[in-house]
Amino acid sequence: MSEPTAEEVEEREAFLRVAERARAAAADLAPLPRAAKDAALHAIADALVARSGEIVKANEGDVARARENGISEYMIDRLSLSTERIAAIAAAVRQVAALPDPVGETVRGNVLPNGLDLRQIRVPLGVVGIIYEGRPNVTVDAAALCLKSGNVAMLRGSSSAFDSNTALVGIMQDALRSSRPTEPQSSTEVPADAVQLVPGTSRDSVKHLMRARGLVDVLIPRGGASLINSVVEESTVPVIETGVGNCAVYVDAAADVDMAVDILVNAKTQRPSVCNAAETFLVHKDIADAFIPKALDALRAKGVTVHGDDRVRAYDPEKVVAATEDDYYAEYLSLDIAARVVDTLHDAVVHIRTYGSGHTETIVTGSQPAAKRFVALVDSAAVMVNASTRFTDGEEFGFGAEIGISTQKLHARGPMGLPELTSTKYVVTGEGHLRG
Amino acid sequence: MSEPTAEEVEEREAFLRVAERARAAAADLAPLPRAAKDAALHAIADALVARSGEIVKANEGDVARARENGISEYMIDRLSLSTERIAAIAAAVRQVAALPDPVGETVRGNVLPNGLDLRQIRVPLGVVGIIYEGRPNVTVDAAALCLKSGNVAMLRGSSSAFDSNTALVGIMQDALRSSRPTEPQSSTEVPADAVQLVPGTSRDSVKHLMRARGLVDVLIPRGGASLINSVVEESTVPVIETGVGNCAVYVDAAADVDMAVDILVNAKTQRPSVCNAAETFLVHKDIADAFIPKALDALRAKGVTVHGDDRVRAYDPEKVVAATEDDYYAEYLSLDIAARVVDTLHDAVVHIRTYGSGHTETIVTGSQPAAKRFVALVDSAAVMVNASTRFTDGEEFGFGAEIGISTQKLHARGPMGLPELTSTKYVVTGEGHLRG
Repeated sequence: MSEPTAEEVEEREAFLRVAERARAAAADLAPLPRAAKDAALHAIADALVARSGEIVKANEGDVARARENGISEYMIDRLSLSTERIAAIAAAVRQVAALPDPVGETVRGNVLPNGLDLRQIRVPLGVVGIIYEGRPNVTVDAAALCLKSGNVAMLRGSSSAFDSNTALVGIMQDALRSSRPTEPQSSTEVPADAVQLVPGTSRDSVKHLMRARGLVDVLIPRGGASLINSVVEESTVPVIETGVGNCAVYVDAAADVDMAVDILVNAKTQRPSVCNAAETFLVHKDIADAFIPKALDALRAKGVTVHGDDRVRAYDPEKVVAATEDDYYAEYLSLDIAARVVDTLHDAVVHIRTYGSGHTETIVTGSQPAAKRFVALVDSAAVMVNASTRFTDGEEFGFGAEIGISTQKLHARGPMGLPELTSTKYVVTGEGHLRG
Repeated sequence: MSEPTAEEVEEREAFLRVAERARAAAADLAPLPRAAKDAALHAIADALVARSGEIVKANEGDVARARENGISEYMIDRLSLSTERIAAIAAAVRQVAALPDPVGETVRGNVLPNGLDLRQIRVPLGVVGIIYEGRPNVTVDAAALCLKSGNVAMLRGSSSAFDSNTALVGIMQDALRSSRPTEPQSSTEVPADAVQLVPGTSRDSVKHLMRARGLVDVLIPRGGASLINSVVEESTVPVIETGVGNCAVYVDAAADVDMAVDILVNAKTQRPSVCNAAETFLVHKDIADAFIPKALDALRAKGVTVHGDDRVRAYDPEKVVAATEDDYYAEYLSLDIAARVVDTLHDAVVHIRTYGSGHTETIVTGSQPAAKRFVALVDSAAVMVNASTRFTDGEEFGFGAEIGISTQKLHARGPMGLPELTSTKYVVTGEGHLRG
């Protein structure tokens, strides 16, 4: 290990100053009532709209640098902010304000035989670190969801969006300051430190966040598999993995062929770049003759390239590309899909266990026993019957908003709404109770 | 890094063979109905009793080695098994069989506006790794709780108990084998691989478990702070921290003095070696004159040494030892307690935030506003009012049994019963639903 440079030491110290302010703010934010948090969210929305000129200007700098660096138009589109987009971001903040507050909810409670009153209630997690890609709207979305659930957000966006994120976080902090009644000091105000940007744009600034155990309560990385894997490997702060989706559509022997084609096409093509898009389809051998030719036609009409095994290729050896192992593992996020014929439902389950990412799988079938068996045997965050994989989404599930889709089993699994940003504590009330 | 020795390579390969068998067993165990799991638990209990002679003999070897190594009598008592203790362990397994099965429970569910049926149901975590100290009863307790919740247990006890644990796990696996109907193969049988002992006794065997991401779903270390910290630092498998308890009793200005003395003495002395015993008491200055002399007398009568600040020592400078910073951080697990006078309830909260481990804190007070404020501001797994800290316990809370007491905020917090050994999945049922 080489000696850290003066710059590195300074960056680490700047990080610790921010993290300690975040920690202190978390203690003040946690007990605040809903009204204080909602007022703060509306103040943030107002300020974003009022100061959208500043935001657009900062964003133009990021976009210009991205163009110089030869970033793809798709990524530049995700990076870009306009007055209209900022208005939409502000509207989303107001929607978060309108959601119920999970904090204080009694999860369970009863009076024990000895008369002790036992309640398990929801409390904020504390400080939530979010590592994400070059989409500045996430800066505000994540801050709003954290604030509403009583958590301090420590935001670490892509360095490509640093100027935009700096402007957005500065405006949010100003809004929290100005939403405070000037006199007398109210005990229900949200501290300006409740929204924090991790200082610096170096790789080290991510490392500081990952090693901030005791200051940061949980890290949520949002992005590609390599980012998430590196966070999981290096972090001593507990991590919630999100977003990698290698989702499969299984067409059972008892499927309605037209329904299966429609679900497959919707799951693959309705929005191919997202984690709940289908990346593989598996076809029971008994329905292959009826299903595969129709499916290939329908997918081709949408511009999809199929990567199939020999049994799929037999239906159209010229247009179906030969699939490799890598195809079955792939999260394409493009107009590609892997395909395989299976002999049994169980073989489909084994394929999913082997290659899937545990996000969403769907069975198309008219058979109730087949549906029941698939649901029991497939171990994914969402298992669907006769529905498109595209429905795995916080908004679609009625949660109002989501911070991400967890593909791990601890704490939260599937779309994470506000309750998933909380922990619980037990409140035990006695009358001098002693243990005998 | 030096080249691994042939022995190290062999140990790692042996670990991977066991972990892969565990992974495969998890898939078979997860969908089993309650009856199959309960039958397996009763078969285990029967076998432990029937073969207790073998267990005692294996245990004698461990105990003899422990004596040679000069282990304390206290530790030897924890390590030792007798026919009576084995009968108690078997009885505990039957109690786990009698608990409700958390798997399959619907956590929430509704029909979405578009007609999709959405249910969130409990599913097993998969493979649960447990790292624990030299108490062979934990081998069986943990295996039973995992089995009942549909999880495969990967057990890594102290090397001091390796022979005992090998005997116990061998007997449990045999019991699972013989509980299988011989013919025809039933689909509801629990696989013998559902209980696994991590092979080897070297430090590396713990490392293999900590790096088995993808094979092991969660690690639960049970033991002292240094074990838990090293697991947290090194593990890429998600960890649930348990068991470090630096618990405080806060005696508020409005406390009933006699109740406060009784709670303090109970919390400190009823069982000093456990994590929910009190290690600190904090006294509001306005009640110090009334409370401290009585408390010092009562604690002294139980053989407790008080480590106090100057304001506590003023009441008995000869017998109260001067407290250092380390005393406030200490989890004594002995007849020692740290003490401090505070000016306000808020100062008590700040002390707890600074030095506490987030396990259990209690306030003794007759004031409802003070109780409410303490409950709101103290961020611990359990916050109590007018009750002994000793009540933070799965049995006491009515959960029937516990795998440990989580002091972290993710996934589970406080006593962990069977539901805390589960994850969830979303089951979504449509009729050809497409996303528009």
